[in-house]
Amino acid sequence: MSNDRLLARRDLEFMLYEWLKVDQLAARERFHAYDRDMFDSVLDLAEHLGTEVFAPINRLLDENEPRMGLDGRVIQPPELLTALRAFGESGLIASTFDEEIGGAQLPYAVRSACMTYLAAGSLATYAYPFLSEANAHLLVTHGTPGQIATFAIPILEGRWFGTMCLSEQQAGSSLGDITTIAVPQEDGTHRVFGSKMWISGGDHELADNIVHLVLARTPGAPVGPRGLSLFIVPRHLPDGSGEPGERNDVTLVGLNHKMGYRGTTNTLLAFGDGAHTPGAQAGAVGFLVGEVGSGLPIMFDMMNEARIGVGAGAVAVGYTGYLHSLAYARERPQGRPMNLKDASAPQVPIIDHPDVRRMLLAQKAYVEGGLALVLFCALLVDEQLTASTDDAAAEATLLLGLLTPIAKSWPSRWCLTANDLAIQVHGGYGYTRDFPVEQFYRDNRLNMIHEGTHGIQAVDLIGRKILRSSDGLRSLWTRMERSIAAATAVGGAPARHAAALAHHIAEVKAALEDTREVEALLANATSGLEAIGHVVVAWLWLEQECVARSGTGAFYEGKRSAAEYFFAHELPIVTPLLDTLRRRDRLFLDLDPNSL
Amino acid sequence: MSNDRLLARRDLEFMLYEWLKVDQLAARERFHAYDRDMFDSVLDLAEHLGTEVFAPINRLLDENEPRMGLDGRVIQPPELLTALRAFGESGLIASTFDEEIGGAQLPYAVRSACMTYLAAGSLATYAYPFLSEANAHLLVTHGTPGQIATFAIPILEGRWFGTMCLSEQQAGSSLGDITTIAVPQEDGTHRVFGSKMWISGGDHELADNIVHLVLARTPGAPVGPRGLSLFIVPRHLPDGSGEPGERNDVTLVGLNHKMGYRGTTNTLLAFGDGAHTPGAQAGAVGFLVGEVGSGLPIMFDMMNEARIGVGAGAVAVGYTGYLHSLAYARERPQGRPMNLKDASAPQVPIIDHPDVRRMLLAQKAYVEGGLALVLFCALLVDEQLTASTDDAAAEATLLLGLLTPIAKSWPSRWCLTANDLAIQVHGGYGYTRDFPVEQFYRDNRLNMIHEGTHGIQAVDLIGRKILRSSDGLRSLWTRMERSIAAATAVGGAPARHAAALAHHIAEVKAALEDTREVEALLANATSGLEAIGHVVVAWLWLEQECVARSGTGAFYEGKRSAAEYFFAHELPIVTPLLDTLRRRDRLFLDLDPNSL
Repeated sequence: MSNDRLLARRDLEFMLYEWLKVDQLAARERFHAYDRDMFDSVLDLAEHLGTEVFAPINRLLDENEPRMGLDGRVIQPPELLTALRAFGESGLIASTFDEEIGGAQLPYAVRSACMTYLAAGSLATYAYPFLSEANAHLLVTHGTPGQIATFAIPILEGRWFGTMCLSEQQAGSSLGDITTIAVPQEDGTHRVFGSKMWISGGDHELADNIVHLVLARTPGAPVGPRGLSLFIVPRHLPDGSGEPGERNDVTLVGLNHKMGYRGTTNTLLAFGDGAHTPGAQAGAVGFLVGEVGSGLPIMFDMMNEARIGVGAGAVAVGYTGYLHSLAYARERPQGRPMNLKDASAPQVPIIDHPDVRRMLLAQKAYVEGGLALVLFCALLVDEQLTASTDDAAAEATLLLGLLTPIAKSWPSRWCLTANDLAIQVHGGYGYTRDFPVEQFYRDNRLNMIHEGTHGIQAVDLIGRKILRSSDGLRSLWTRMERSIAAATAVGGAPARHAAALAHHIAEVKAALEDTREVEALLANATSGLEAIGHVVVAWLWLEQECVARSGTGAFYEGKRSAAEYFFAHELPIVTPLLDTLRRRDRLFLDLDPNSL
Repeated sequence: MSNDRLLARRDLEFMLYEWLKVDQLAARERFHAYDRDMFDSVLDLAEHLGTEVFAPINRLLDENEPRMGLDGRVIQPPELLTALRAFGESGLIASTFDEEIGGAQLPYAVRSACMTYLAAGSLATYAYPFLSEANAHLLVTHGTPGQIATFAIPILEGRWFGTMCLSEQQAGSSLGDITTIAVPQEDGTHRVFGSKMWISGGDHELADNIVHLVLARTPGAPVGPRGLSLFIVPRHLPDGSGEPGERNDVTLVGLNHKMGYRGTTNTLLAFGDGAHTPGAQAGAVGFLVGEVGSGLPIMFDMMNEARIGVGAGAVAVGYTGYLHSLAYARERPQGRPMNLKDASAPQVPIIDHPDVRRMLLAQKAYVEGGLALVLFCALLVDEQLTASTDDAAAEATLLLGLLTPIAKSWPSRWCLTANDLAIQVHGGYGYTRDFPVEQFYRDNRLNMIHEGTHGIQAVDLIGRKILRSSDGLRSLWTRMERSIAAATAVGGAPARHAAALAHHIAEVKAALEDTREVEALLANATSGLEAIGHVVVAWLWLEQECVARSGTGAFYEGKRSAAEYFFAHELPIVTPLLDTLRRRDRLFLDLDPNSL
């Protein structure tokens, strides 16, 4: 449909206005300054930045990964700094924040659509502001007014960046094993000692300062996650006027060399090793956020935002890969229709071959399904903030909690598959670095790993979000039943798909409602995550199909075809995926690891 | 089980001796010089080369991809030449050839097991001899005695390498569109003019000469595939004593820069552009192989060997990735059992977590299933050569033809998934270049593309190998029914799996036996390929399970667990995969491409 290879603007507008009716949000107090034209202007700005500023440097960053100079500073292409300054000046980073702290109170749904342009343009460039925004959001929610003014505002003004520092060598997925310590000082600050690894954006020369949010243990704190507290540890301590002053004792120890996502520095940091403050009092200066011992739940506010952001990034990279392979398939002549025997007939564009169409439709189903998922989650954030009743806000919170592991994991899994198919559509060309799709694949591969691996998301969904309380799932089923009723009333393909969805919902219920043998259930949690993810995305495709049902023209026809693809080729795997959960299969539990 | 991270020797021996009973081949005339000890010695040699010579340079080759010097020559790390010389001196390349031309008449099954070590050690290094061997094999089968002596023998002596030159810019999957021409000369040679691309090993300084096998069109030949003839076009024309003499007019025009598989040069070659023979008679000197117009069927002898070799390479890389992730999972402590609430208890190795076991068992099921497939195909080649009756030899040929697209595509698809899981088991570490699994993934990604894409294999299987004649499939079903009967007699898990296999065979039959609406059937060929591939590998797992059924100890238990995994978690996807074939779904055919 679109010749634009970054994102399909037409689709974004379909999702925002025709399906989610985001323009109606303008009737709410928080968003009173907006109308659809203004939303479109912000989308224009994001599209411009993604297309003209981010996308042009994406390959450059891949080919010139960060390295450490002799002075210990990170060396990166200067074009990255230029792009990030342009983004900083756009004001987009503060767009959703309250007006009283310099924000623009843009709905999250619109903001998320905008950010998809940036991530599609250059995921590794976008990672810096993406983490910084989530960092500022945590500070605004949990910080003191002084902390907000000192640390969050410079981020929202686009001048400073922020990180999240959780992992340590011995504590990756197992955060309770963090050993970094924070020793309280008489002046109310703490001194932080320890090593953190996998810190994205942990050091660079791209901003005036870096605000690290560091999980650490206070002396005498209980073992495990409950002993963790959260600290602001800036790279430079702010001076009297709030400007970056003396260097804090945070040292870049090493840079990771990654398969992709190379423009984002990924660092090993030492806190309080004395390298930057020889002779001074030992330790990196840290400022406690919230209460002692409440570090993990506070950090998870940022983590949950990051998880949905990871999903959104995966969608964006999948989406641009789809459009690149679509353009290639329209342009590349090769072969002839299978039933044409005339070898002298001209070759046809490969989009005419059924198997190429399969690969394109699959990508479309993944990336537009994934986009629907992340935009729906963003709208739930808007609902939390502005729903007309407390009950509606609470329901949005519940649903968002349930959907977060799905919004993180489903796009990371399936939009990666989309990138894989984008390579395949290109054939040998797709395997070369002359085309961008191989980088998309390498960049996107990280998303199943960071901010909680795929398996961690599965345990979060089945263990924490479903087994502990059925409220979230019940709320989801209620919404789905409403969609099913509407689609059934429509008749035709939507009604057929509604029946299929109802069938698979019943399968999920049958697999999960019996809460015996929880251990065996959790042992198959990943299959459950993938099954429920497919059910959720099928629901969102049913929603899109119903909106598109009476539309004329190629765009709406494409929506209907992609929905048909998803229901015919994707959703049926739910049945075998759920089988091991239903049977409480113990293969993974009873296995003798020595037999591997 | 094994601490060896390259391949599990114990498993190779299980496959060769306990399952395929390759030692019994020694009773046949062709293999009379062998016994099991001698097979083991050859395996020792291959294991040594793979472990000590190939594997140590694998990362080096990735980090130093081929580049063109100012003199137009390819620059590669000298360690590659050293490794290839060591391989050349081993004599392995000629191992399966007839004694009368310097071969060792080793069974293909043993040779394939050996070569798996080389491919696991360094796929990109192994590609040179792998293509050269297939090239020599074509020459020995179709060449004149003079061509064999001049071109095949130096390859079999490890001194020269060979290539296959099919693709052109406008003729990738569509070989009938080749435009390279070969003009007959009065002396019986031809002069070749044209460009070839994607030529692996097409130029380098690693051998004394390179024997290109070039598909070209003779003047006045019919359009399409029937107009193609095959030519030997050596880089250097042999002089009077058979040594490489004057440079032939074959020019390296460019090198492709690939996502992985970097140690193998991938080239754009110009034939007859005059760059190497200024002033001389125009054209690259070529020597016709076989009859004019018979180029494609002859080339496909090499292509079919290459396809099974691609599958074997995919298995090898998948296998070593599995063993690397297995070793990591045993060593890496992280987290605690889910039902253990004591946060101060020591962390457990991640192999104790069910989801990590899932990822390991899946890899094991893929790579050992894939290995069984390629070794079984290799044994079919031995059967072709040495079966006691003509009928048995013909049945082996039929079955090998049917299984070739599966042996190419199934490992390329699923052992790539194994590499993906190997990354996932490593978590963030797996995404860094400090661990080899990310390279395995990048290297293996090519295998779904070259020597006929995944979609091409699907059309070959469903269109050519099944719809044109049901003989191959009938032979496969007969063998499977024998296995099912034996497993049913055993009882227990094998009987249960036999019933599942029978069920899915019936589904395949139901989807394919109705030969109406062939166009719609072929439009869903890839789903059919994947479904039948899973059925075939399930059969091979049933076979392995039956051999392992009464074995005691961890090794046999592992076989039984992997079989259980495959039947419980993998085989059931056959049902949804076949659904669109059964329904003759027309989605891909009827789609308006403008709606994408």
